[in-house]
Amino acid sequence: MCQLLGMNTNKPDDICFSFTGFRKRGGDTDDHDDGFGLAFFNVDKTAKIEKYSLRTFHDDQPSACSELAEFLANHPIKAQNVLCHIRKASDGNERLINNHPFVREMWGESWAFVHNGQMVKKFTQQLPEVESYYLPIGDTDSEQAFCYLMNRLRTKFAKKPSGKRLFKYLVELNNELGKVGIYNMLLSNGDWQLVYANTLMFYVERKAPFGKATLVDTDVSVNFAKLMKPRQRAVIMTTIPLTHDENWQQFAVGECIIFRKGKIVHHYLPKKPHYLSIEDGLNLAKRACDTV
Amino acid sequence: MCQLLGMNTNKPDDICFSFTGFRKRGGDTDDHDDGFGLAFFNVDKTAKIEKYSLRTFHDDQPSACSELAEFLANHPIKAQNVLCHIRKASDGNERLINNHPFVREMWGESWAFVHNGQMVKKFTQQLPEVESYYLPIGDTDSEQAFCYLMNRLRTKFAKKPSGKRLFKYLVELNNELGKVGIYNMLLSNGDWQLVYANTLMFYVERKAPFGKATLVDTDVSVNFAKLMKPRQRAVIMTTIPLTHDENWQQFAVGECIIFRKGKIVHHYLPKKPHYLSIEDGLNLAKRACDTV
Repeated sequence: MCQLLGMNTNKPDDICFSFTGFRKRGGDTDDHDDGFGLAFFNVDKTAKIEKYSLRTFHDDQPSACSELAEFLANHPIKAQNVLCHIRKASDGNERLINNHPFVREMWGESWAFVHNGQMVKKFTQQLPEVESYYLPIGDTDSEQAFCYLMNRLRTKFAKKPSGKRLFKYLVELNNELGKVGIYNMLLSNGDWQLVYANTLMFYVERKAPFGKATLVDTDVSVNFAKLMKPRQRAVIMTTIPLTHDENWQQFAVGECIIFRKGKIVHHYLPKKPHYLSIEDGLNLAKRACDTV
Repeated sequence: MCQLLGMNTNKPDDICFSFTGFRKRGGDTDDHDDGFGLAFFNVDKTAKIEKYSLRTFHDDQPSACSELAEFLANHPIKAQNVLCHIRKASDGNERLINNHPFVREMWGESWAFVHNGQMVKKFTQQLPEVESYYLPIGDTDSEQAFCYLMNRLRTKFAKKPSGKRLFKYLVELNNELGKVGIYNMLLSNGDWQLVYANTLMFYVERKAPFGKATLVDTDVSVNFAKLMKPRQRAVIMTTIPLTHDENWQQFAVGECIIFRKGKIVHHYLPKKPHYLSIEDGLNLAKRACDTV
């Protein structure tokens, strides 16, 4: 199993504070020590139509002690969407080729994906057949799920549809995938970030009036009132809350939210939402690893 | 215009020595200071079929002073194929979205591409029409040329063909592209690396018996006899030789070589090869920037 961290903001911002805590879970405060990866999207300054640059970083070293992770924690990279993943290889293949984020180009945009969970074996056989524009490079169920999602999107929409149609179909696809495995994920095209939860996911909004925040995983705290300008907004989403003293909101099982510029732009909540305790969520994940 | 650096080896090796000199050309010994990028491919240890992991690094800072470049020069990353690019934006758009290497997935493999030169405007209109599996994300002629190449390959071969058929067709495609612009490039799928030259490109083979090498761009020398094992082989390819005291071989205009495990596996040399002086090559590049 793995853990996820994401950020969506209205102004380019760095993720150093949140990553400083999160990276400890890769070999220090937790055992997700089979490598990590990050994707940073930023708005492209001079494009005539809105475009997003992408930078990725992958390492097979544990994020708690990797020199690249140390570099990234101390060198702010400004971005409007960040996706981060620390990996605990559930099937033993702790290799760089399998490290998230996975990236593909669609409709002239970079799309990045991170996944926490485990799909049932041969899950694609339980879903509609689809043309293969995208193939996995490594051998994880996660990359297979990402390619399946991208193939379905591209088969349905030869060109990029309106946000409304796209978001509606993304919710539909994620609900399908959520039925064939443990499937928590973040997906971004640089413009927006989608969160789908089916066990554990939380998010916090950082906006005025700003307060203090203290990390759970290491002895670091900040006062956002001193770091952020009044109109800045950031949403942080992660598997298990990163701070003691912020108002983390839990995703229900099957809930899907799309964030853009630090606000919710599309929201799907099941009719009878239910929420797992962190303990139940972790146990469910563990049992899935043992049985599928 | 830009400069290129590549490496192909039979054993995973780092590129720190060559990159230490090359990066100086990005804002110190030369003016290619609009950012840089690297792609590192390594063989995947446990894959049943031969697979290659890919890590990329991109920065919009000049490689001579970028902290990421400093990190990469001092933290060896083992790889069997490396592609590196330092950028001088010929059309003024010095933006991260346009920084090479460009990457796409084809046939379940990562393909990476770097380009030095400038295509004539709307060059794709002078070439056969092709289906758009791949679209550019930024707005450079380089990424457009890469997507054109990938679209032609994928249209011709729905599945990965034999090496012989693939290499033959790649030479054909590169000869087409070489006619519609200044087009020096490196291309790799992790297994092999292709070099196509139509102005300036050089390569050097580092193999036993190993000797000393002294960088042109900075006061650093190494003795490869102490660094490399007798059976190790590495080929370094670049726009203008990196060292004083090695046997650099120049590519003819229109020459194409594919290297695998530090050896030539496919070679196309025009019937009447001709070679540009470095001065003529640089002038040609400069004139192209001014006129197209």
